[in-house]
Amino acid sequence: MRWCLAVLLAAALALGAVGMPSPAPLRFAQDGRFKVALFADLHYGENAWTDWGPAQDEGSDRVMAAVLDAEKPDFVVYLGDLVTANNVPIPNATLYWDRAFSPTRSRGIPWATIFGNHDDMPFEWPSEWFSPAGVPPVHCPPSTMPSSGCSFRGTPRMELTTAEIHRDVAGLSRSSVGPQELWPGVSNYVLQVLSQEEREDPALLMYFLDSGGGSYPEVISGAQVRWFQSQSQFLNPDGRIPELIFWHIPSTAYTKVAPKAMSKISRPCVGSLNMEDVAPQEAEWGMMNALAKRPSVKAIFVGHNHGLDWCCPYDELCLCFARHTGHGGYGDWPRGARVVEMSEKPFSVKSWIRMENGSTHSHIVLDLGTSR
Amino acid sequence: MRWCLAVLLAAALALGAVGMPSPAPLRFAQDGRFKVALFADLHYGENAWTDWGPAQDEGSDRVMAAVLDAEKPDFVVYLGDLVTANNVPIPNATLYWDRAFSPTRSRGIPWATIFGNHDDMPFEWPSEWFSPAGVPPVHCPPSTMPSSGCSFRGTPRMELTTAEIHRDVAGLSRSSVGPQELWPGVSNYVLQVLSQEEREDPALLMYFLDSGGGSYPEVISGAQVRWFQSQSQFLNPDGRIPELIFWHIPSTAYTKVAPKAMSKISRPCVGSLNMEDVAPQEAEWGMMNALAKRPSVKAIFVGHNHGLDWCCPYDELCLCFARHTGHGGYGDWPRGARVVEMSEKPFSVKSWIRMENGSTHSHIVLDLGTSR
Repeated sequence: MRWCLAVLLAAALALGAVGMPSPAPLRFAQDGRFKVALFADLHYGENAWTDWGPAQDEGSDRVMAAVLDAEKPDFVVYLGDLVTANNVPIPNATLYWDRAFSPTRSRGIPWATIFGNHDDMPFEWPSEWFSPAGVPPVHCPPSTMPSSGCSFRGTPRMELTTAEIHRDVAGLSRSSVGPQELWPGVSNYVLQVLSQEEREDPALLMYFLDSGGGSYPEVISGAQVRWFQSQSQFLNPDGRIPELIFWHIPSTAYTKVAPKAMSKISRPCVGSLNMEDVAPQEAEWGMMNALAKRPSVKAIFVGHNHGLDWCCPYDELCLCFARHTGHGGYGDWPRGARVVEMSEKPFSVKSWIRMENGSTHSHIVLDLGTSR
Repeated sequence: MRWCLAVLLAAALALGAVGMPSPAPLRFAQDGRFKVALFADLHYGENAWTDWGPAQDEGSDRVMAAVLDAEKPDFVVYLGDLVTANNVPIPNATLYWDRAFSPTRSRGIPWATIFGNHDDMPFEWPSEWFSPAGVPPVHCPPSTMPSSGCSFRGTPRMELTTAEIHRDVAGLSRSSVGPQELWPGVSNYVLQVLSQEEREDPALLMYFLDSGGGSYPEVISGAQVRWFQSQSQFLNPDGRIPELIFWHIPSTAYTKVAPKAMSKISRPCVGSLNMEDVAPQEAEWGMMNALAKRPSVKAIFVGHNHGLDWCCPYDELCLCFARHTGHGGYGDWPRGARVVEMSEKPFSVKSWIRMENGSTHSHIVLDLGTSR
């Protein structure tokens, strides 16, 4: 039970405050299932000084509410780009970051977050604000530091996560900051889902990785690869526990299995949206090799490409895009969320996409391979 | 003497602390001259984790020392890009910013600074730091805020200037922060140079403008145009006092008068280096019109293009590049500094370039025009 100590330590870290109640462990339900909704690319906080910015944020609230009410998931993963920080004209984006949890929190559903490439970007001053028309009225809070002014310099990843944890009085956030040696990456941590029957045994491990972007390059580092290898070896040395992976930016492996952009998606790939090229990480420093070598790793889930929602096999792994959930961000494709439902015994993974209008599509049963 | 109050207020602001002695006013010397050295594009702080970064900073120290000892100027203008903040792996670039003044301070010469596009850039993590080789040993000071970590997010303009003023115990910095309505631009202020004879009368006005870049677009805004118009009308309503202008990034007007890149520089332009295209501001929001309309405005001095060092006429204004002074930044052309020498009566402006090796070239007497 070596994992126990690590998980307890991680939970203590995630709580971030002595005296708060331990959050209930994640666990497969009585029916042997565990259902996760993926909210990808919400892009809250765009153009707050116009009508359309706040209106689209309300749209994002509605998408999440519709998905949560239809699916009643056990867990939510916020798959990065929760905010469009380069468009957020306040020095601190944590207010928008917090708003993203509102529909999930109000339903009492636990969640976890990972970072996308927009979450800690510095504010990009619109060029037209320098024209004779000038700067529109924007929220510029009175600063206690006269020197900080309205510098709008973005909110660091650490500050976003620590604010999330600090504000989570209900104990629903399972987000955590990874070890310091992985900085500037922050959202690197592992969550376990306990067995329905064996009260202390994990039946699923979920690895969250920071795929960079924003304040640093869009990569998963060699240091993260080493961390994953040591964590997985420590928590799951015999590979008995199935493992799922979540990060924001598709790895270059996605480009290898992608259907040609704009073409029909055909088996073995499953999906409905194939409207652009994969926009992959800048480099591959070994994470895909490390994952492909572990039969216990079943699938990777990413966001980032708003115009893609497919799953394709890669070796014996399943590479899946989520579905663009937020009304913020580029693209006019209808919004929705990928849902991932696991059965514990025998372990299986189903997935589909739940749309804002209530429909579902792109149902798939993940091929977990003979050796998996 | 309306300007008196404004100048005193600006001086009080620049000192930034009650109880410090007022700095001596800038004044034409006994021989009726006032000599300014322009230090452009020093780019301190590059690649501090290698040998070549610190070595080139020592080179920049030597260039400035050589110019100062040869020219003995009355004043130094730091013309932006004092640091390459996107390459500075410490959360606070003020140490490098301060180092740029060292040769000037040790000789007791007053100075002023304006911002370039590199001074408040956020740190750009080198992509290779994410390879299996990892991050080289870098200075990562123990933080009092656990959440700030090593986020290396750049140092805002306001913080750089306030640190400069705060550390200036000798009262040599004449830098100031402009009015809040011009933010995110910061280096917007006016300095006067008093007459040699008339003890309280200014004989020259030097306008410093923030031409943007780094944390916001590379522009001079409509708000800055209005500020310049009201300041110049207030300080110099009859245009009796000659005026010089300093900013970092050439305006688009420079592209109109530029000799074709790589071609010989011929009259009426004067210079030695014409190795690249002008890299102008993103837009022109009226500053050039405002300047061209004032016969009292004689010349504009900019940096930014390391491969250009010419002066060319534009209408009745003289548009001048400085000379790349720092060993940091792109380009291998020999380093030097533009020197600008004014005579008070009759007002005239000479300029030349002083090289690191002691030679001078590109002597020019500015044509101040019949109406100027």
